[in-house]
Amino acid sequence: MAIQYLAGPRQTSFANSTSTHATHFNHLRIAMVRDSAYDTWCGVAHGCTKKIGLKICGKWKEEKEGHFLLPFLEDTSRRSTKVLDFHHPHQLLEGMEGFNLELSDNPESLEQILVDCRDTLKYGVRTGHPRFFNQLSTGLDIIGLAGEWLTSTANTNMFTYEIAPVFVLMEQITLRKMREIIGWTDKDGDGIFSPGGAISNMYSIMAARYKYYPEVKTKGMAAVPKLVLFTSEHSHYSIKKAGAALGFGTENVILIKCNERGKIIPADLEAKILDAKQKGYAPLYVNATAGTTVYGAFDPIHEIADICEKYNLWLHVDAAWGGGLLMSSKHRHKLNGIERANSVTWNPHKMMGVLLQCSAILLREKGILQGCNQMCAGYLFQQDKQYDITYDTGDKAIQCGRHVDIFKFWLMWKAKGTVGFETQINKCLELSEYLYNKIKNREEFEMVFKGEPEHTNVCFWYIPPSLRGMPDSEERREKLHRVAPKIKALMMESGTTMVGYQPHADKVNFFRMVVSNPAATKSDIDFLVEEIERLGQDL
Amino acid sequence: MAIQYLAGPRQTSFANSTSTHATHFNHLRIAMVRDSAYDTWCGVAHGCTKKIGLKICGKWKEEKEGHFLLPFLEDTSRRSTKVLDFHHPHQLLEGMEGFNLELSDNPESLEQILVDCRDTLKYGVRTGHPRFFNQLSTGLDIIGLAGEWLTSTANTNMFTYEIAPVFVLMEQITLRKMREIIGWTDKDGDGIFSPGGAISNMYSIMAARYKYYPEVKTKGMAAVPKLVLFTSEHSHYSIKKAGAALGFGTENVILIKCNERGKIIPADLEAKILDAKQKGYAPLYVNATAGTTVYGAFDPIHEIADICEKYNLWLHVDAAWGGGLLMSSKHRHKLNGIERANSVTWNPHKMMGVLLQCSAILLREKGILQGCNQMCAGYLFQQDKQYDITYDTGDKAIQCGRHVDIFKFWLMWKAKGTVGFETQINKCLELSEYLYNKIKNREEFEMVFKGEPEHTNVCFWYIPPSLRGMPDSEERREKLHRVAPKIKALMMESGTTMVGYQPHADKVNFFRMVVSNPAATKSDIDFLVEEIERLGQDL
Repeated sequence: MAIQYLAGPRQTSFANSTSTHATHFNHLRIAMVRDSAYDTWCGVAHGCTKKIGLKICGKWKEEKEGHFLLPFLEDTSRRSTKVLDFHHPHQLLEGMEGFNLELSDNPESLEQILVDCRDTLKYGVRTGHPRFFNQLSTGLDIIGLAGEWLTSTANTNMFTYEIAPVFVLMEQITLRKMREIIGWTDKDGDGIFSPGGAISNMYSIMAARYKYYPEVKTKGMAAVPKLVLFTSEHSHYSIKKAGAALGFGTENVILIKCNERGKIIPADLEAKILDAKQKGYAPLYVNATAGTTVYGAFDPIHEIADICEKYNLWLHVDAAWGGGLLMSSKHRHKLNGIERANSVTWNPHKMMGVLLQCSAILLREKGILQGCNQMCAGYLFQQDKQYDITYDTGDKAIQCGRHVDIFKFWLMWKAKGTVGFETQINKCLELSEYLYNKIKNREEFEMVFKGEPEHTNVCFWYIPPSLRGMPDSEERREKLHRVAPKIKALMMESGTTMVGYQPHADKVNFFRMVVSNPAATKSDIDFLVEEIERLGQDL
Repeated sequence: MAIQYLAGPRQTSFANSTSTHATHFNHLRIAMVRDSAYDTWCGVAHGCTKKIGLKICGKWKEEKEGHFLLPFLEDTSRRSTKVLDFHHPHQLLEGMEGFNLELSDNPESLEQILVDCRDTLKYGVRTGHPRFFNQLSTGLDIIGLAGEWLTSTANTNMFTYEIAPVFVLMEQITLRKMREIIGWTDKDGDGIFSPGGAISNMYSIMAARYKYYPEVKTKGMAAVPKLVLFTSEHSHYSIKKAGAALGFGTENVILIKCNERGKIIPADLEAKILDAKQKGYAPLYVNATAGTTVYGAFDPIHEIADICEKYNLWLHVDAAWGGGLLMSSKHRHKLNGIERANSVTWNPHKMMGVLLQCSAILLREKGILQGCNQMCAGYLFQQDKQYDITYDTGDKAIQCGRHVDIFKFWLMWKAKGTVGFETQINKCLELSEYLYNKIKNREEFEMVFKGEPEHTNVCFWYIPPSLRGMPDSEERREKLHRVAPKIKALMMESGTTMVGYQPHADKVNFFRMVVSNPAATKSDIDFLVEEIERLGQDL
């Protein structure tokens, strides 16, 4: 597929060109308009200089090359294609053949722009490849992609109904649907799509603070007791990060112990709440995680909710990763109790396969977001508009301009239906179960925690031949710690697959396998296992 | 142009179809792969249900309709096309003919998906229309659009070099170039692209706080003196919003008086700093605006920088709107002194015509962002990777996942060169000058402030016949206050053009005209003026 800018009034020859249907079939054309606005549009495209614009555009008349988006998609779906073609930063910075990242004063030729586009993809990472397992967000949903292309073509801003009427309503409807799926019965909840789970979690803390101490908005943190937040030691680092940003301080983000499966120990939560109160702190907020980043653990929400009710604390559920399971009647019981939360983070760009970014913060109670963030900017949120201004979303947000993240998600939902999401999520979980059953009893592998995974996270060590049978010792742990990084480095250099690893608490580096791309199959799981063995056999 | 998902192994007939070249010319095709991965890809696209996938995909075989992206672009460039087709929220929610926003359990037909896409554009607002003047971000740069399509196809995440090697380097190079243009001579500055100017401004306050009071990160705002921030009464509301979010409190965001042109009065700044110190507050940060939202005013940066140096305060320049003028040798003097700032917000998605979103926060000193936001998440930012991990950007950000906002901007810069941006920015400023000269002496219009605009903002009242010659009075002001909203409502209903209005301080509702779309011409300015007169003549 080519990106072919072009054509124009002088370009009628295009329709009579001798290029084949097959060539056309592989073309993506952004065609220019055959009317008097042509020159202006050239200007818009190419720097407002008609001469440059015509020069660059004109080139296209003879251009038959320059396909890259379609072949990229095609290649990405092929197992034989590498996931990446690894280069070190200094190599790319020095400039690969014909690909120079530096910017200059003068325009590049159109040929060069095409090369730039092609090489940008060539030296990138194919996150849509069925063997890319490196992140919680993988895959490339074609309907989602089409949605994102339409979104960029519409190029508008979510802050007002005035300039994004359809998208604003789609957001409202989708958020309501998500609240229903969470199990909140009140129609009047709230929410907003934000640029990622970390920001969604930040919103949840801001909402809690505003609900209990609205004076912070005007008087700051100095005006209230020393507030503390609780989250598990396995929870996402964004809770701590938000604690730092919002003026709580990371020391006032208290980490709760987890059991061997990475789930919060409710007794430890209650003990730490009591301890904080005794020391004169004011407990405010508890984050329960539904699907931790590394273990994929689900905190026991009902037990945590009981404690929150007892001590009158805000309960947030970070379901950025696990929220997708709410779509599955088979798996949603893992989030039982989520309907008792005051707020929920849920990232459709993770387990639901929506393109990056698509993250929602959902609130049970209406009005808090608005109260918390409202600044009543007169130039945007005029009170005397002709439409119902309660549809303007800008005063709820910490952003001013806000990208349209809703359309790709909405369109996917329309195309798949709730049942489509359910099927695709169930499939990913089955693949993880397959992996778990495949490796759990083999001497080449050691599981990081016992028992079947609850989410698609399968955490394991690969034990190279040299370490098999060696009893646990500091030396063995040190050696084992170096295995995963070595295999990962070899994997990236060979470009065959990608999977994450990390140390965690007292555990040395282990692999964290996750599946969120429904294009993956059992053969891809088999391949990953074989590849780890191949790359690790001499370690 | 159609979005045509499709094809597949059974679809060889496509190449022999009888559709004309012209039809092909108008097609955008996302073609499926003719290999064994086809079914899986269908699954990815259509809910992981082969049957549904095939059903939807298969429909495409006969589909000749369904073009919408290209006609949308074509129409948008035509003056005869309406800027919008206005409907009230309740109208769209009740469902327009065949267009239902509600989500359901089961997949929609492919025909319906196409209708949904077409209607999404139909009932939206054409922000790329040359007569859309409603926001600071307007226009639709075709190279930028191509860049955004490639970005969504690559669908990756900026947090690590590991999965976004090319984009991470492009960001680094572009930020360095922007710092050079600001005039910072030290090679080792810093910066990051963020989801909008409000978040960029928030970063600047966090950076200032971390530089002067790093203990806030761990101990919170309670551990430090009562910090205060200074910004002008004409500055963007995001400074106050960030003050609320970060725990300063809006009362501790002190507003400095402006002169009649909307520029900070340095003497008032100094007086308020002294007053705050006397009251026991600790002044931390001053925001100077380069291009205010409403008046387009440029604060006198040198004079403000002198005061900041004298009192050892962090100087931030919010050049979200005005930053583009740095690209123009004719206009960059308006930002003289910006090289003395500690941090700068600069939104290429405003005056440089990049698609939404593209906003940079730039810092003169390296290391502050990292120090401020670093949480060292082991699962993402492993210390034992095989590449130079200083290229990972995630620990600088308040986000975890971060959308790729750089590519569209980088590609535009390659295609236009610095000179291309300069030409297009100069053109927009010339159009504003044309508007100013056209209306400044006419009895139908009254300027909100005297003198030539510095940016493209032209602020004016339209004086309807009934108010002409009437001396200033409460009654006249009340009547005048209602004029702009009435004209705006009529304008939106007729769909011919869009321009913003607002009250400001003691000024009743006035129009704020801005030009940031280089596709606009003098005829569009003429049209706007005539349209306001036409719609307002009976008021």
